[in-house]
Amino acid sequence: MNFITFTEEQLRNFTYSVFERMGCNDEHAKLATDVLIRSDLRGIDSHGVARLSGYVRLWEKQRINATPNIKVVHETPTTATVDGDGGLGLVVAPFAMQIAIQKAKQYGSGWVAVKNSNHFGIAGYHALLAVEQDMIGMSMTNASPLVAPTYANERLLGTNPICYAFPAGHHPPVVVDMATAAAANGKLEIAQRSNTAIPDGWVQDAKGQQSTNPNELKNGGSLLPLGSDKAHGSHKGYGLGATVDILSAVLSGANYGPWVPPFVAFLEPPTDPVGEGIGHFLGAMRVDGFRPVADFKNHLDNWIERFKGATTVDPDKKVIIPGEPEYAFEQERKLEGIPLIDVVVNDLNELATKLGIAKLH
Amino acid sequence: MNFITFTEEQLRNFTYSVFERMGCNDEHAKLATDVLIRSDLRGIDSHGVARLSGYVRLWEKQRINATPNIKVVHETPTTATVDGDGGLGLVVAPFAMQIAIQKAKQYGSGWVAVKNSNHFGIAGYHALLAVEQDMIGMSMTNASPLVAPTYANERLLGTNPICYAFPAGHHPPVVVDMATAAAANGKLEIAQRSNTAIPDGWVQDAKGQQSTNPNELKNGGSLLPLGSDKAHGSHKGYGLGATVDILSAVLSGANYGPWVPPFVAFLEPPTDPVGEGIGHFLGAMRVDGFRPVADFKNHLDNWIERFKGATTVDPDKKVIIPGEPEYAFEQERKLEGIPLIDVVVNDLNELATKLGIAKLH
Repeated sequence: MNFITFTEEQLRNFTYSVFERMGCNDEHAKLATDVLIRSDLRGIDSHGVARLSGYVRLWEKQRINATPNIKVVHETPTTATVDGDGGLGLVVAPFAMQIAIQKAKQYGSGWVAVKNSNHFGIAGYHALLAVEQDMIGMSMTNASPLVAPTYANERLLGTNPICYAFPAGHHPPVVVDMATAAAANGKLEIAQRSNTAIPDGWVQDAKGQQSTNPNELKNGGSLLPLGSDKAHGSHKGYGLGATVDILSAVLSGANYGPWVPPFVAFLEPPTDPVGEGIGHFLGAMRVDGFRPVADFKNHLDNWIERFKGATTVDPDKKVIIPGEPEYAFEQERKLEGIPLIDVVVNDLNELATKLGIAKLH
Repeated sequence: MNFITFTEEQLRNFTYSVFERMGCNDEHAKLATDVLIRSDLRGIDSHGVARLSGYVRLWEKQRINATPNIKVVHETPTTATVDGDGGLGLVVAPFAMQIAIQKAKQYGSGWVAVKNSNHFGIAGYHALLAVEQDMIGMSMTNASPLVAPTYANERLLGTNPICYAFPAGHHPPVVVDMATAAAANGKLEIAQRSNTAIPDGWVQDAKGQQSTNPNELKNGGSLLPLGSDKAHGSHKGYGLGATVDILSAVLSGANYGPWVPPFVAFLEPPTDPVGEGIGHFLGAMRVDGFRPVADFKNHLDNWIERFKGATTVDPDKKVIIPGEPEYAFEQERKLEGIPLIDVVVNDLNELATKLGIAKLH
């Protein structure tokens, strides 16, 4: 595996051109680009430009609307439901988050359920929009079914991520951004490429037995919820995934459970939808709705320092603050560029040829 | 182990008398009783009347205030911080939840952070108060440090439970109510009593090595976060526990992390507190702030039926809807009574003697 490193600006320009060719207006193309590039900057390579050709394929199949009329369809002072009109989740979710933030400015908190959307990139991007305003940000989304609930031998839930983000003082924000499955699909894909065994507790095979074969998903198997099995709390991971599904989709009017449309163009969506598109749920709460911002940040800094300074089992390892590794990546990659593996670069250059834009190199 | 079965009314009367003897007023004694009895009714025996003598011991040491002046100390239209004045969490948390519900009635949602409180019983009780009003309820609390974050060899977090509760139509509410540790302390206590090995992945010993000895907590060990180890996502369980700690305590002004006072009278609280008491975080959102209640309930019923009807690995087991077993217990125990193990009955009768009230039998 070879890496080629690009500057942030190179990748931004390329990505913008792709969204422009899809027909996105300037504002939408910039926003979608920002979500993807921030993922690469933060070291979450699986959710950045590596997914660009996937978005394009869904657009080609008319499963993503590049010119959506995103609108609020239901509202109270602090809640709203947004219809994403089949647009890119990368555009729809920040739109919804801005509504949550505006409501929070006026009333202390704001909560927006979204239907008729698509894959929204990294959950952390949206939650961090609130953090910039000294708010606590929350974001979650449902996703194509890959996870079998405890005891089930069917894929009924997506990896349904949850993110909470908190503004700190002189430390980076605390960002808890996690899939509710035991392991994200991206980790499986890495094991598939190198054809190495995965730990027990990540997947079950088509018969429902735990397996260490990274290819079980292709053979009819399922991902397991966080907790892996009942004895280790898989019902909790399943409960969290269910919470994300209900808040994102049952509440908004999107598809839920096994009806969530797949995020790959080669699989067709279910023919009996129970809602529209996929769903998100986003929220913002003003820190000073609870206590002065400076007090909160001082105590969160103290929290961070106490946890970072904790005694560890292995003296060479430290307790990691959620969001700290991603922040470190972001500082480094802004200066030193973003490394992409060659297969991703080739894929992007093929995309460039297809769309008639300049190749990456 | 022998069980003795009491009617709900017998246990309510007894529990009320205990709180009355502590000096609680009629309203507070009824409320605290309701929280504990509902836990026993719902089959969560570890959090019901079995804890009564523990609350009394903390009150005897003046670590619980039976006559608190619970008040709102900070507020916006949809957020508030409540000072519990050292009162029973069983009283303080429902007080705070009612504020959240009132705010939600007026503005769509309400969120209340609580400081200076104590153990609040089962998280589900508080979240279900919102469900009765066709709202989505959320409750969480931090707790005495027992859990070691990923890589740590220190207890820095409590089992920090999270609950989300959703109103369904003709099915019982969906109630996700879970500790963020791999296994609740109650499960360890059961294994201690029978002196049986516990599964790998629940605890680590004083050196930070995983152990199957249920007594490791007494020997300086720690509970492990949901996920058990890094390969299985323990950083996610740690992240969830951290989220609960920050929302409940850093946001409210309560003690957090290793500074949370222990909920047992024989352990003294830290002498260098960073806040007041323990903290909770409670919220309510009106379902009709997002879509009509009937639509939400119809789709949640459909969700429930699809998951309950899923294909399972073992044909004798069904997929369990979160909250369904507790609901079934509640229906059964309301009719047939609540079984208590003899050690709990003896403990309660000793308490009766000490307080000068009628014994249970």
